[in-house]
Amino acid sequence: MTHDHSSCCGGHGHHHDHDHSHGADATGAADLSGPAESPIVVEVTRGGMVESVHRARACIVDAGGHVLARWGDIDAPVYPRSAIKALQAIPLVESGALDAFGLGDAELALACSSHSGEPVHTERVAAWIARVGLTVEDFECGAQIPYDSGTAAGLVRDGVAPSALHNNCSGKHAGFLTTARHRGEPTRGYVRFDHPVQQRILGVMEQMTGQDLSRAPWGIDGCSIPTVGVPLGAIAYAMARIADPVDLPDARAEAVTRIAGAWRAHPHLIAGRNRFDTAMMQAADGLVLVKGGAEGVGCALLPEAGIGIALKIEDGGDRAREVALAALIRSTKVLGEEHWARAATLLEAPITSRVGRPVGVVRAAGGFPSLLDHPDQAGVELSRP
Amino acid sequence: MTHDHSSCCGGHGHHHDHDHSHGADATGAADLSGPAESPIVVEVTRGGMVESVHRARACIVDAGGHVLARWGDIDAPVYPRSAIKALQAIPLVESGALDAFGLGDAELALACSSHSGEPVHTERVAAWIARVGLTVEDFECGAQIPYDSGTAAGLVRDGVAPSALHNNCSGKHAGFLTTARHRGEPTRGYVRFDHPVQQRILGVMEQMTGQDLSRAPWGIDGCSIPTVGVPLGAIAYAMARIADPVDLPDARAEAVTRIAGAWRAHPHLIAGRNRFDTAMMQAADGLVLVKGGAEGVGCALLPEAGIGIALKIEDGGDRAREVALAALIRSTKVLGEEHWARAATLLEAPITSRVGRPVGVVRAAGGFPSLLDHPDQAGVELSRP
Repeated sequence: MTHDHSSCCGGHGHHHDHDHSHGADATGAADLSGPAESPIVVEVTRGGMVESVHRARACIVDAGGHVLARWGDIDAPVYPRSAIKALQAIPLVESGALDAFGLGDAELALACSSHSGEPVHTERVAAWIARVGLTVEDFECGAQIPYDSGTAAGLVRDGVAPSALHNNCSGKHAGFLTTARHRGEPTRGYVRFDHPVQQRILGVMEQMTGQDLSRAPWGIDGCSIPTVGVPLGAIAYAMARIADPVDLPDARAEAVTRIAGAWRAHPHLIAGRNRFDTAMMQAADGLVLVKGGAEGVGCALLPEAGIGIALKIEDGGDRAREVALAALIRSTKVLGEEHWARAATLLEAPITSRVGRPVGVVRAAGGFPSLLDHPDQAGVELSRP
Repeated sequence: MTHDHSSCCGGHGHHHDHDHSHGADATGAADLSGPAESPIVVEVTRGGMVESVHRARACIVDAGGHVLARWGDIDAPVYPRSAIKALQAIPLVESGALDAFGLGDAELALACSSHSGEPVHTERVAAWIARVGLTVEDFECGAQIPYDSGTAAGLVRDGVAPSALHNNCSGKHAGFLTTARHRGEPTRGYVRFDHPVQQRILGVMEQMTGQDLSRAPWGIDGCSIPTVGVPLGAIAYAMARIADPVDLPDARAEAVTRIAGAWRAHPHLIAGRNRFDTAMMQAADGLVLVKGGAEGVGCALLPEAGIGIALKIEDGGDRAREVALAALIRSTKVLGEEHWARAATLLEAPITSRVGRPVGVVRAAGGFPSLLDHPDQAGVELSRP
């Protein structure tokens, strides 16, 4: 039952004095005395009873680093996984790689996406990577059966094996490869912690979150790149700085504004058919940008309000991430009734039997307090180094 | 955001005075003040950090109703879902229907199964239902894509839509239909709460759990039959009475002994390829019988020790149910080192990246105390009416 760290964290200089036990202790989650405080409850009902519950912690932060609302522990680190792909796309823009290869908003949106592997996604990524002079063989993310069930069935019918193009992260990896090519770096090994591509992203993460991540816990994501633990509040802060880049250096402000524009312009490229992120952004007419990640991490930003939201479902459940993020967005009061009328099943997701009969729902228990109703929660300063 | 009960609980006499709010209140899970106490922690690690945690409550009970060990609230009701299919199979045996149609242990195991829809499962269910003079059209459980990915891909390649035979519950439904045919009851509507098939099962559930379930919360399961909330301790008690039926009436003792024998003899029919229940029972050489259900419910019984185990993962997560149930079974010390050597990945389940690299594990945090090491947990009487 000993935990084997060697598979993930050997052989790199940057973290040579990395103390893994520190990471586990910092979460408070490694012992029975208690995981990080997660007071938000998402309930799963069935007939006359709440059958299951998920717990979550979350916060809403502005671009000045002020915590406007918090629920539970926002200092404990979280692996942001795919929820911060927008941050990982910054070097693609800032390096000039995107423009140098004549790429545009669609490719930038795909770099920020966890797509469903539909043809609209994979064909664009394939064309993109060809333009950079590379092939699917250069991806190091691994193959994946597409999230989109129709596309997956089509591959089976055609006798075609899923490839790295169908990996939901293939747009992000195309961005990594494009940046490396533009800068004349070796593309092989671009997923490794010590490769310039990943070190550059680590630097961007430190800048955008305001955190020293040199001793942060880290692990390997499903697509083979590092994912570094960041306090939940600092993740929301980074999102707020995309929403309102006023305090960022000019080049960075320009890059995140361009990324936000691409994210907003292409909700279908960010996820896909019947996916929460796409549906939430479409229902909101672009007033909110949303991105989920594995293990129950969710991010959102509201450009009009200049705020960012970060959420972690304690148990990693996707169904809870979706309704909780919708409830958090609703609490900001930025969207109107017309938006929520379209997003009703995102706030309260139906559960149906196999014959399609509604038998329960997934929803935030008791809803969430609005910001204005709880002014006492406002004004907590986010701790920054 | 109001909870619509009417879809699940209207139109039956048995529960005409059923108070749904009571069900929600009894769980304690419907408000932010706290879900039922679930002190067991299952941790999901990745690299240097615990990324997610699941919480659980559980107990180990003997056939005399003595609680040998408990973790958290075992009085709050749980929908047992598919974890108590062995109890739902009792009328199939006791009514004489199984013998009358010349059915045997394989069919009885399928009645207790949540199978993967492999040909070995569906062909047997198809032959069974034909023997009873019915067809797939008589099933009211709905169609389902088989859990077994190879079988599911084969259906797509062949252009064959999944049918009710592939529903993981088709064996259970075949048992319902067989009992109804044998007793001359209408088969149509056999999934309804007020149909004799379901009322008979409600009676068996009351007898085996020692509970008055006339006011218990209930909902509709994925396969359209009722699932009735039962205190977790009482579910374990019912399992213990299958393990050691000494206090049961002779006909009931004979029925559960026959069911346990079929369950033990056919671990592959109970679930299927790469499924936890099958793998755990095979590793244990039949010393433990295991059955999982939806929403994180797990049951086990150890005939040699005469004890039953019941487990509920608070958030409903399958991955946590599996490792927690393995850890609970280990705590009984009934299995030897040779069994656990074969079941190592059931106690600590690897998480891999999409290229197959190990990046983390799912395991009970801190393991579980053994019964003998914690004698102070023993001897709590299970409350029975």
